[in-house]
Amino acid sequence: MPLTISKSRIEALSDGVFSIAMTLLVLKLDVPAVMHHHASDESMVDELFAMTPALVTYIVTFLIAGGFWFLHQFTFHFIRHVDAFLVWVNLMFLMLVSLLPFSAGLMDHLVVHPISQVFYFGNELAIACLLNVHWLYARHKGLTGSSEPKAMFYVNCRVVGTAAVFAACLVAGFFAPAYSWVPLPIFLFAAVITELFIGRT
Amino acid sequence: MPLTISKSRIEALSDGVFSIAMTLLVLKLDVPAVMHHHASDESMVDELFAMTPALVTYIVTFLIAGGFWFLHQFTFHFIRHVDAFLVWVNLMFLMLVSLLPFSAGLMDHLVVHPISQVFYFGNELAIACLLNVHWLYARHKGLTGSSEPKAMFYVNCRVVGTAAVFAACLVAGFFAPAYSWVPLPIFLFAAVITELFIGRT
Amino acid sequence: MPLTISKSRIEALSDGVFSIAMTLLVLKLDVPAVMHHHASDESMVDELFAMTPALVTYIVTFLIAGGFWFLHQFTFHFIRHVDAFLVWVNLMFLMLVSLLPFSAGLMDHLVVHPISQVFYFGNELAIACLLNVHWLYARHKGLTGSSEPKAMFYVNCRVVGTAAVFAACLVAGFFAPAYSWVPLPIFLFAAVITELFIGRT
Amino acid sequence: MPLTISKSRIEALSDGVFSIAMTLLVLKLDVPAVMHHHASDESMVDELFAMTPALVTYIVTFLIAGGFWFLHQFTFHFIRHVDAFLVWVNLMFLMLVSLLPFSAGLMDHLVVHPISQVFYFGNELAIACLLNVHWLYARHKGLTGSSEPKAMFYVNCRVVGTAAVFAACLVAGFFAPAYSWVPLPIFLFAAVITELFIGRT
Repeated sequence: MPLTISKSRIEALSDGVFSIAMTLLVLKLDVPAVMHHHASDESMVDELFAMTPALVTYIVTFLIAGGFWFLHQFTFHFIRHVDAFLVWVNLMFLMLVSLLPFSAGLMDHLVVHPISQVFYFGNELAIACLLNVHWLYARHKGLTGSSEPKAMFYVNCRVVGTAAVFAACLVAGFFAPAYSWVPLPIFLFAAVITELFIGRT
Repeated sequence: MPLTISKSRIEALSDGVFSIAMTLLVLKLDVPAVMHHHASDESMVDELFAMTPALVTYIVTFLIAGGFWFLHQFTFHFIRHVDAFLVWVNLMFLMLVSLLPFSAGLMDHLVVHPISQVFYFGNELAIACLLNVHWLYARHKGLTGSSEPKAMFYVNCRVVGTAAVFAACLVAGFFAPAYSWVPLPIFLFAAVITELFIGRT
Repeated sequence: MPLTISKSRIEALSDGVFSIAMTLLVLKLDVPAVMHHHASDESMVDELFAMTPALVTYIVTFLIAGGFWFLHQFTFHFIRHVDAFLVWVNLMFLMLVSLLPFSAGLMDHLVVHPISQVFYFGNELAIACLLNVHWLYARHKGLTGSSEPKAMFYVNCRVVGTAAVFAACLVAGFFAPAYSWVPLPIFLFAAVITELFIGRT
Repeated sequence: MPLTISKSRIEALSDGVFSIAMTLLVLKLDVPAVMHHHASDESMVDELFAMTPALVTYIVTFLIAGGFWFLHQFTFHFIRHVDAFLVWVNLMFLMLVSLLPFSAGLMDHLVVHPISQVFYFGNELAIACLLNVHWLYARHKGLTGSSEPKAMFYVNCRVVGTAAVFAACLVAGFFAPAYSWVPLPIFLFAAVITELFIGRT
C-alpha cells in the first residue's frame, strides 16, 4: 500500500540542508587573532594571506556543493513519484552533504596532507555515489517521466562523471596530495566543451 | 471565529527547523587539535578513529531526525486544515527537534553513560510523544481527510511504534547503557518486514 | 511606478529567518565541561540541573519566537499586495528576530539581573512594535483584503496585546527582575479565555 | 539540448542562503565575559556599550544583505527562464553573500582600519558586481519577459547604483576609513527621493 509522498517537501528539505551546509562553511573561517589588536597594516595583510588555503577551500567546497545541488535539482525535474526507499537514499545523501563543513575544516589546516585529502574527497565521492544510487533507483523503478530520453541521458553522464572525477581526486589525494585537485578543472573543462559542442545538437 | 491558518507555511517552518537542526549536528564535530600540526599519519588516523563515537552519533541522530521529518510529512499529507492548537503542538514538537544538537553533544562525550543516554533518548521520546499528540488531535478533531483509511492506519502504527521504540531505548539506556541502541535496529527490521509483506497487500 | 513584489518570497525569507533564529538558540546550550570526564552520576545530574535557567530561556524564547511567527503568518494571510516600504519593515522585523539568540544568551547567565532583563524584553518589545508598524501600514495602505473584518479585528487585538505584554515585562524586569515573566502567563491565560469564549461567537 | 531548470528551486536555495547568512551574523555577537559574574550594573552597561561597533555592523550588514535579497527577488520577477550559466552566476553570488558573516567579523574588531574596510566593502562590491553580471546576462540572453520596460529600467538603475555606491565605499574605506560609510546614506537618500518623485510618474 504505497503512501503518497510529497515531492515538494523532500525538495524543500534538500534545499534547506544544501543552503545551510553551504553557509555553515563560513563558520570555519575564524577572524585572525592579530586582527583584535591595533596591528600594523603589513601584519594584518599577512594574516589575511595566511588564510588563503581556508578561503580557497571555502570557495571550492561551496561551488562543489552548489554543483551537487544543481544535479540533484535536475534529477528531481525528471522524477514524478517518490517512494520510501528514495526518501531514505535522499536522507543519507543529505547527511553526507551536511558533513561537508567538517571535511572542509580538515582541509583548512592540512591542505597537502594525504589523510585530510582522503577524508575530504571520500566525503565528496560518497555524495556522488549516493546521487548515482538515487538516480539509478528512480529510473529503474520507473519513478521518472520518459518524455525526454536525450536530456535524461545527459543527466546520466553528469551523475556518473561526478563520481568518476571524485574517485580520481581521491586516488590522486592518496598518492600525490599536492595534485589532488587536478581532476576538477579537467572535468570542468570537459563539461563545458560537451555543453558547447555535443550538448547543443 | 476560526482564522484560516496556512498549512504551507507551517510546513515551510517545519522543513526549515528540521533541515537546520539536522545540519547543526555537524558543528558538534570539532576538527581534532592534533590536525593543526604536522603530525604523523598514524597519530592523525588515530585521532580520526577516536572521533568514531561522535561520527556514529552524528549519523544516527541525522537519520532519526530524518525519520521524524518523514513521519511528520506523512501526517501533513492527510491533514487538510490547521487550527491554533495544532500549530502550538507543532511549535513544541519543533522546539524538541531543535534541541537534538545539544542531546547529541551529550552523547558524543559519554556514549555508554546512563545520564547522557537518558537525556538523549528522553529527547527522542518527547519528540515521538508530541508527534502522537499532533496526529491524535488532528484525527479526533476531523482535521484530516478520510479517503484513505488503510494508509492512515499505516501512519498510526508508525507514529505509535516510534514512541514505543524510544521508550524501550530509554529504559535500556538507564539499566544497560551499552545496549540502549538495540531497539533501533529491531524496529527498523520490523518496519522493513511490514513494508515488504503486509504493507503491499 | 510600483514594481510587483513577490509575496511568496518575503514569506519564504521570513520562514527561513524564523526557523534559523529559533534553531540557533540551541547553540547557547553548551555541554557542561564535567561531562567530558568520567564523572559520578551525581555531579553530572547536578551539572544538568545547573543548566535549568539556560534550558528554560531556550524553551520560552523558542515559543515566543514561534508566537511571533504565528502572528506574522496571520497578517500575511490578509495581506494581498506587498510594497517596498512593507518589505523594509519586514527586513527590520527579521533583523530583530535574528537578534534573539544574543538576547537569550544574555539571559542564560544573569536571569534575575535588570540589565539582561531590559535587553531581552527590549528586544521582544521592539519585535512586537515592528509587527504593529507592519500591520498598521498594511491596513492603512489598503494592502489587505477586507472580506473578513471580524478576523482582522481579532488579529489587531493580538498584535497590540503582544506589544502591551512585553512592555509590561520590560517595566517589571527593570523594577522587579525576579517577576518580569509574570505578564507572560497572564497574557497567555487571557488569550486562551478569549479564544474559548469570545473568539468562538 | 537545453535542460529545463526549475526557477522555483534556485529561488528557494537563494532564500535559504540569504536567511542563513543574515541570521549567522548574530553568532559574531559574543555575550561579554563580565556578564558571567555578578558584576555591578555600571560595568555591565559599559560592556554592552563597548559592543556598539559590533551591533552597528550587525544591523548595517543585515539590512544591506536584505537589500541585495530585495534586488535579487526583483530580477527573478522578470526572469522567465533559467539556464546553466545563470545558475552558476547565482551560486557564485550566493557564495559571496554567505561570506558576509566573516567580513562582518573583521569589521567588528577594527571598524576604522583600512584593511577590514577594504575586505568588507570589497565583499559587498563583489556581490553587487555579480548581481550586475546576473542581470545583464539574463537580459542579453532574452531570459526575461519584456512586458514592463519601465520597471526593468528601474531595476537596472538600482542594480548599477548598488555597485557604484559600494565602489565609492571601498575607495573611501581605503583613503579615509572613518568616513567609508558616508556613501550609504547618500545612496539611500537618493533612492528614496527617486522613489517619491521620479519613480511614481
